[in-house]
Amino acid sequence: MQNLNRQVVLRSRPRGEPRPSDFELAEAPVPAPGEGEILCRTIYLSLDPYMRGRMDEGRSYTGGMNPALGSVMVGGTVSEVIASRNPAFPEGSFVLGANGWQAYALSRGAGLRTLDPRQAALSTALGVLGMPGMTAYVGLLDIGRPKPGETVVVSAAAGAVGSVVGQLARLKGCRAVGVAGSDEKRAYVVKELGFDACVNYKSGALRPALREACPNGIDVYFDNVGGDVLAAALTLINLRARIPLCGLISQYSAIEPPAGPNLRPVLTNRALIQGFIVSDHMDRLADFLDECTRWFRDGKLKYREDVVIGLERAPEAFIGLLRGQNFGKLLVKVGEDPTARAVGPRA
Amino acid sequence: MQNLNRQVVLRSRPRGEPRPSDFELAEAPVPAPGEGEILCRTIYLSLDPYMRGRMDEGRSYTGGMNPALGSVMVGGTVSEVIASRNPAFPEGSFVLGANGWQAYALSRGAGLRTLDPRQAALSTALGVLGMPGMTAYVGLLDIGRPKPGETVVVSAAAGAVGSVVGQLARLKGCRAVGVAGSDEKRAYVVKELGFDACVNYKSGALRPALREACPNGIDVYFDNVGGDVLAAALTLINLRARIPLCGLISQYSAIEPPAGPNLRPVLTNRALIQGFIVSDHMDRLADFLDECTRWFRDGKLKYREDVVIGLERAPEAFIGLLRGQNFGKLLVKVGEDPTARAVGPRA
Repeated sequence: MQNLNRQVVLRSRPRGEPRPSDFELAEAPVPAPGEGEILCRTIYLSLDPYMRGRMDEGRSYTGGMNPALGSVMVGGTVSEVIASRNPAFPEGSFVLGANGWQAYALSRGAGLRTLDPRQAALSTALGVLGMPGMTAYVGLLDIGRPKPGETVVVSAAAGAVGSVVGQLARLKGCRAVGVAGSDEKRAYVVKELGFDACVNYKSGALRPALREACPNGIDVYFDNVGGDVLAAALTLINLRARIPLCGLISQYSAIEPPAGPNLRPVLTNRALIQGFIVSDHMDRLADFLDECTRWFRDGKLKYREDVVIGLERAPEAFIGLLRGQNFGKLLVKVGEDPTARAVGPRA
Repeated sequence: MQNLNRQVVLRSRPRGEPRPSDFELAEAPVPAPGEGEILCRTIYLSLDPYMRGRMDEGRSYTGGMNPALGSVMVGGTVSEVIASRNPAFPEGSFVLGANGWQAYALSRGAGLRTLDPRQAALSTALGVLGMPGMTAYVGLLDIGRPKPGETVVVSAAAGAVGSVVGQLARLKGCRAVGVAGSDEKRAYVVKELGFDACVNYKSGALRPALREACPNGIDVYFDNVGGDVLAAALTLINLRARIPLCGLISQYSAIEPPAGPNLRPVLTNRALIQGFIVSDHMDRLADFLDECTRWFRDGKLKYREDVVIGLERAPEAFIGLLRGQNFGKLLVKVGEDPTARAVGPRA
């Protein structure tokens, strides 16, 4: 057992892409476990894109405050218990935890999961059978809800999450299409992982290549990157497509938010955007008429009309509508209304 | 009864904003109803933003082909039946239909709804008690799912849809905040319709004004316009916000798609974008481990690791991760793994 605990601490908050000088290698004594504690020796540390957000000032999107300057960088770990004063985690057992970027850590056991190396190699608990794998699993199956025969596209397809998304899509009977950043990754995704196709987004012709890879359009787009790949995927989505928004790596280090609507708050707030058109919902017509007619007649639902007289004025009125020049529901009175002002509240 | 049916026909497909010369006023004989048909005299024609899309070449997002050049413009209508050879719609009755921009039209009755002018003024069937009202009703209640005490923001708040959205939000116990395009509309929305607040997006300081109007953030953003207002609203959304995407008026006449991800395909395909984070879904941990461990051990779920040796290399490895330089799940091997290669498939 070494006498020093090596740690990587946050030295400065990056502006834009992190630089090596934002990190500092530090040393501290290896701590001794107190009553109820265990001493963990880190075997594997997981590095994941979300960590970039944890380097910023403020609150993380999982709720807590981000680490202070000088703190050990956060991260998932697989460790061996090398000293234990907690019977739930005996010496020699292996645990999955979040001990961060350091060689040793104390724990009281909260949030630790014991690993059985006979089930799968320890390192898989940080990947395919860990947080990235489960991210793929719930994001694809519970939010993407793929149906057999549908086309599932995933960005960062060779990555820890993306590689699982595409394989799960195949296991569910879907066409799996990846987007990755090199021809080597592209070949791996198709030949090793068994995706139906993969596009190298750095090859220059992303939209035509993606269109060719998705002859039936896209039913599920599992996004890890945002930016150009998201924009390209959106041009190919099918009716009632689902878009699990898992990551926006392309903008994690951006200093300025992207042009156009920035979807980062949608990701961090687990928000839902859904396009809709009223004609899909005609089963609700009776409910709507019942409730709204009552509210309208009771004066609880007010209403204003902007009535243009004469069919010949419809074009100019319509052009004004697109400019927001109308005030109230725009109608063209084409002919006489024999019932007007007979009954019913009017604005 | 006049002898001529006045019509507005589509003369040319607009590039960008429609111009008066894209429309043409035409005259045709008033048709006579055949067996099973009725002759409708248009009283009110509804003008709605969706019509801009119907002027373009190609397929509309409700499914059918857009009208050919020379066709009568499409549109919802309230009409009086002035001649009938269909007992379901007697002469003198009033019908809601889609007879388009013309003074008279024949119909076989398919899709027509008879209106009772004693219930409400006929024109309301094209607005508050018609398609715009029902759009507000299903979009807010079924997709937005507002809960009492939440904040609902709606753009184009003085419009046919937006004015109903905010009032329904109030009826459901929410704080209703509008965004509108003039101080006159802003005053109407607050004083007449009873919204809690309204922001004039043309006043110049949209984001601070919206922030002030939403001290508890935004739970539901009902979007009719897209563009800057959507971008501003996204900066204020709360955890698990819902964003019914009803319209993108700001870009209907755009020649180039907007910078950044273009949400128009999300609208037209009624797609769903949902941000998510795996830690919200820990109830699925057992399912994930059961299924994926089995697939992994059966060789159906492949996995590649990119293992960097030594904690001191974590910073450079992490910087490379954000650039996509890793290939496979990125791990730092911090210490010896006594179980490595003992069991379990490895990539």
